[in-house]
Amino acid sequence: MTPPGVTRASYGAGEHYAHDLVRQEAEALGAIAQVDAAGNLYLTLPGRNRSLPRIVMGSHLDTVPHGGNYDGAAGVVAGIAVMADLVEQGAVPSRDLVVMAIRAEEAAWFPLSYPGSQAALGLLHPTALQARRSDTGKTLAEHMELAGFDPEAVRRGTTLINARDIAAFVEVHIEQGPRLLALDAPIAIVSAIAGGFRYVDARCFGAYAHSGAEPRFSRRDSVLGFTDLVQGLETEWDLLERDGLEATITFGRVESDRTQHGGSRVLGELGFTLDVRSEEQAVLDHLHQRIHTLQADIAAKRNVRFEMGQKSVWSPARMDAGVIQRLEASAAQLQMQPHRMPSGAGHDAAAFAAAGIPGAMVFVRNEHGSHNPHESMRPEDLDQAIHLLVNFVTSFDER
Amino acid sequence: MTPPGVTRASYGAGEHYAHDLVRQEAEALGAIAQVDAAGNLYLTLPGRNRSLPRIVMGSHLDTVPHGGNYDGAAGVVAGIAVMADLVEQGAVPSRDLVVMAIRAEEAAWFPLSYPGSQAALGLLHPTALQARRSDTGKTLAEHMELAGFDPEAVRRGTTLINARDIAAFVEVHIEQGPRLLALDAPIAIVSAIAGGFRYVDARCFGAYAHSGAEPRFSRRDSVLGFTDLVQGLETEWDLLERDGLEATITFGRVESDRTQHGGSRVLGELGFTLDVRSEEQAVLDHLHQRIHTLQADIAAKRNVRFEMGQKSVWSPARMDAGVIQRLEASAAQLQMQPHRMPSGAGHDAAAFAAAGIPGAMVFVRNEHGSHNPHESMRPEDLDQAIHLLVNFVTSFDER
Repeated sequence: MTPPGVTRASYGAGEHYAHDLVRQEAEALGAIAQVDAAGNLYLTLPGRNRSLPRIVMGSHLDTVPHGGNYDGAAGVVAGIAVMADLVEQGAVPSRDLVVMAIRAEEAAWFPLSYPGSQAALGLLHPTALQARRSDTGKTLAEHMELAGFDPEAVRRGTTLINARDIAAFVEVHIEQGPRLLALDAPIAIVSAIAGGFRYVDARCFGAYAHSGAEPRFSRRDSVLGFTDLVQGLETEWDLLERDGLEATITFGRVESDRTQHGGSRVLGELGFTLDVRSEEQAVLDHLHQRIHTLQADIAAKRNVRFEMGQKSVWSPARMDAGVIQRLEASAAQLQMQPHRMPSGAGHDAAAFAAAGIPGAMVFVRNEHGSHNPHESMRPEDLDQAIHLLVNFVTSFDER
Repeated sequence: MTPPGVTRASYGAGEHYAHDLVRQEAEALGAIAQVDAAGNLYLTLPGRNRSLPRIVMGSHLDTVPHGGNYDGAAGVVAGIAVMADLVEQGAVPSRDLVVMAIRAEEAAWFPLSYPGSQAALGLLHPTALQARRSDTGKTLAEHMELAGFDPEAVRRGTTLINARDIAAFVEVHIEQGPRLLALDAPIAIVSAIAGGFRYVDARCFGAYAHSGAEPRFSRRDSVLGFTDLVQGLETEWDLLERDGLEATITFGRVESDRTQHGGSRVLGELGFTLDVRSEEQAVLDHLHQRIHTLQADIAAKRNVRFEMGQKSVWSPARMDAGVIQRLEASAAQLQMQPHRMPSGAGHDAAAFAAAGIPGAMVFVRNEHGSHNPHESMRPEDLDQAIHLLVNFVTSFDER
């Protein structure tokens, strides 16, 4: 993939390369490497009591097209660094420590939520194997097979780990927004991961006409219809915030038809995406309902109609109170005072939480957002997360 | 050009073919054909007194890409039909009757307002000759030369007719909107042609961000900035109408950057066009002013900024009260009761009016708008316009 930035497609050459690199580093530290049917990598540093449920740390190694250095990779590198720190100290953890490099987290490639994590847990819906990668058009199953993995085994739900054998899943990840910068803090502990729903191919339809010739009374303007929806949902957002509820509403693409638009056109069609997020399922349900009533009102007022197309949905995930408490105890011992904050973006940790595994996340301060070549995390901030996790692991069976 | 519809580019093969066809028809009726330096065609049926200022009728023969049968052509055909009617009656008009087939009216080809009419009147600004045709990239001068015309003579302002030698210019044109359909009337007399201004490459800039990660307080969303502008201008439009003033405000293209947009993106840039029209220069000035104050307000509120890019401007044109009165007198004699209505779209008649020539237009009922393959005018409606013009010509020196 061409510059700028880093492009490691899910099941692409760059992701494979990154998996190999991480595996070599961990094996050099004495970790045992295993790969499951979906290509997820497990790097195990054996503990004193190998029959106890494991501590798992990890994140993904794919990136969006033209992404940055840190989204995903920082979490895997943090896990390896925890291992290296323990090995260097000569400390054997009380139970197995597993660093996972997870496949296929970035939905820019396959229109799916965390298929790598879901496959790791035996929970990938078989239809997901038929999802096609946005650049190649090949299915997830085809890409698994091309990379030497076993989509049939994934389909059957074969796994290397069971949810009940995981004591805790902790994912380190760069913060994708500017909250930590605003707080002047290196790390935070994530309280919850937002769920959401998204329409990637929504349209407002009116009727094309000549701007100068179509009288206002008969105009059916898709731009005005779309604008009403944007502003109607912004009012809803205001009302939710007034009630102390959080949500995020985003129109990430707005596009008129290039074969039809022009300076003197009343637009008969406007395409857009709509992305709605909240930690609270009730808020998501409310907004879903409001979108439909707003559209009915706008359709009647403007003589337009909306076609929202396919909807993708992902559930909010609470992080585990017990794991958060352990992380905060470690932080206190290290004289850190990390804030708690929700994650508006989705993460593999949500898939683990959905499987009933006690999970948590640590955010690391990062400038310029994520999903772009300018992601900018300071190594000393990641160090804070690594110190926290070393303490978390070494004290796990002592508290 | 590929289907659908009719495509006769300005100075293209289809326009030449149409000019040849019209010329043959008129010459068969005994008209004298002349072509000016810009390729405009003049078909003259000599009158009894050849020294009196002429009556000129005409319109253009180019079309937009994938246009219809009637936009432009109907007006030239109507002129030829008036001639044929007079010849058939054996009636010699009191003064010369000239039917004009005008070049290059559709701004889809050259980003200019009526260069054919302006060249006919010796008023084409020399820089216009350097405007490039949207499909070929060649300049207007190059296209004139390729077609065997004389751009140097056009540059010098050489003409075949002078404004003071034209008693009246009358353009028949299909109505491009549905007003006549709504009125259940075959024809109307145009009271004025709207002027306007247009930004074809305007942008709202915010900052790209991840929808789930960017907190609301720091979001700089170009979609919200754009929709504020749309709604702000719609409110202005409401206020103008409440004051009995007319205007038209249209966003004919709305487009996010394909290399940047996506379901989970806060859009840092949104491109659009803005087209503003009115019969009243004061209304245009007011709206121009309001666009700038609105943008300053929105920029402050949303932390976005607008870049409006190049602005094209065309002036409103009043139709001549005397010519309108003559047309209405002819209509009364024929027991027609045509409404008067403004034209929101621009027409060659505006260029003639700007040159001080007494002008008027007759609109003919048409379904499905214009600038598309579905233009639909009934021949019997055009007949009404032809009857009206025959009376207008034969009674011109009797009233």
